[in-house]
Amino acid sequence: MLIQRMAIIGVGLIGGSLAQALRRAKECREIVGCGRSEANLQRAVELGVVDRYCLDAAEAVDGADMIVLAVPLSANAAVFEAIRPRIAPGAVITDVGSVKTVVAGAARQHLGRLVARFVPGHPVAGTERSGVEASFADLFQERRTILTPLAETDHDAVEKVSRMWRAAGAHIDRMDLHHHDEILAATSHLPHVLAYALVDCLATLDASREVFKFAAGGFADFTRIASSSPEMWHDIVMANREAVLQSLVSFQTHLDRATRAVRNSDAEALLAIFARAKAARDRYTGTLGTVGASR
Amino acid sequence: MLIQRMAIIGVGLIGGSLAQALRRAKECREIVGCGRSEANLQRAVELGVVDRYCLDAAEAVDGADMIVLAVPLSANAAVFEAIRPRIAPGAVITDVGSVKTVVAGAARQHLGRLVARFVPGHPVAGTERSGVEASFADLFQERRTILTPLAETDHDAVEKVSRMWRAAGAHIDRMDLHHHDEILAATSHLPHVLAYALVDCLATLDASREVFKFAAGGFADFTRIASSSPEMWHDIVMANREAVLQSLVSFQTHLDRATRAVRNSDAEALLAIFARAKAARDRYTGTLGTVGASR
Repeated sequence: MLIQRMAIIGVGLIGGSLAQALRRAKECREIVGCGRSEANLQRAVELGVVDRYCLDAAEAVDGADMIVLAVPLSANAAVFEAIRPRIAPGAVITDVGSVKTVVAGAARQHLGRLVARFVPGHPVAGTERSGVEASFADLFQERRTILTPLAETDHDAVEKVSRMWRAAGAHIDRMDLHHHDEILAATSHLPHVLAYALVDCLATLDASREVFKFAAGGFADFTRIASSSPEMWHDIVMANREAVLQSLVSFQTHLDRATRAVRNSDAEALLAIFARAKAARDRYTGTLGTVGASR
Repeated sequence: MLIQRMAIIGVGLIGGSLAQALRRAKECREIVGCGRSEANLQRAVELGVVDRYCLDAAEAVDGADMIVLAVPLSANAAVFEAIRPRIAPGAVITDVGSVKTVVAGAARQHLGRLVARFVPGHPVAGTERSGVEASFADLFQERRTILTPLAETDHDAVEKVSRMWRAAGAHIDRMDLHHHDEILAATSHLPHVLAYALVDCLATLDASREVFKFAAGGFADFTRIASSSPEMWHDIVMANREAVLQSLVSFQTHLDRATRAVRNSDAEALLAIFARAKAARDRYTGTLGTVGASR
């Protein structure tokens, strides 16, 4: 069995799904949950997602050989600080944050020489729902988990985290953490900003009730991510501010081009943009979201 | 039986799906297909979507009591002109175009006094696929079809088209045609422009292959509409140019606000935008896409 005792700090969609996946894979003997909401932790026990829980993070990591931080980005620093004195020798620490530079910075600041046991990770998976009730064992199946080890990270720690995610069904990629943050700014953080901005825009129209009533299926898909947690996402965007800003500026250039084509009745230019986009999306569809070519 | 002979000009996703739905509902004795691609029409006969086909639109409408134009927006005028001399007395004509003002204009110009038999219609349904192979009988189930009758439209013609769409599973709404075009600009045409612009933007990045590789499920949903037909969609945007431009300008204001919040590290302002958007989307989710509250 890969893990004897896993401490999951933050038993929400991601933490809860990882627990369920590892339990199903029989790769984890005991799972201890920790979080701020006792009601959520009690539910996690009832659902069989964790074996027991503590409200104190330092207590939760006691004797754990695997420690997973699945908390909002801005909470990682405080958790590192709180757990550091109680981290067992040889234990491995990892996280699931969507922005790696800030988490790595917090780890360097608060973990001291234990930073060598920390493997920054990001499972590229999720739904617009949150909380342990939304978690499910298949969330990471055929998805990618990106690991961004630091120069000082121990090799065996990276190996153990890789094996953990593989056991949960994910494929592993390794990447430089700055590169990770740029890629995710473009493919995830930017689309969230656009979806939120669009829904906010439509909601302010006089005819907003009607607007939503007559929105077709494509609109529901297009705006689904705008039902994601605003707290979590403003946290992510702020943590990756520079890369997101750069993506926004780059998108702006392309949107201006499309707007100009519409304004100038330049049907040819508009068709060129649409055709290029469709060709690109269709070309990459096999790699979208999942590892295989299933969608 | 509601319809004795239906002529469908354009047997693609929409035309083909309507044919299948009416056949299943046993509300149509005979279905004649017409289009430019003989291969597609042959396939439509093989699939049992239409009973027979003509390559000539005038011939196709001969003796039909229901004539459905399901062609690209810019093709409607030429079809009206071609079929006018062969439209049977008492026949009803309708279309499925996404922009109603241009189709109504074309009808007024080319149908003469037969414009009283024309009911502009728009089934708010679709997928990113096209062609008869993509059609299916359930496409309109629990979806809305908007009818925008003209002042001169015969009451019995509106009734017959309403009954046809109800038989296909849709719910009927009536609306002024300018209002329709404004609503659809915001909920459908604008999101398509944004999705195309986003994918075009990402495709031009140096790391585009990687960008698409690491895009998560939300991105696949968000950009699905960018796999729609570029020809059809540039046609739609151009036909509804003014309303789309107005939507683009309005969206731009909201995007600027979000960009400014990111640039100024104004986490509070960004959270306010995200929270407003989520609240609006969640409030209206019951009405999104379908008539019921099924999603």
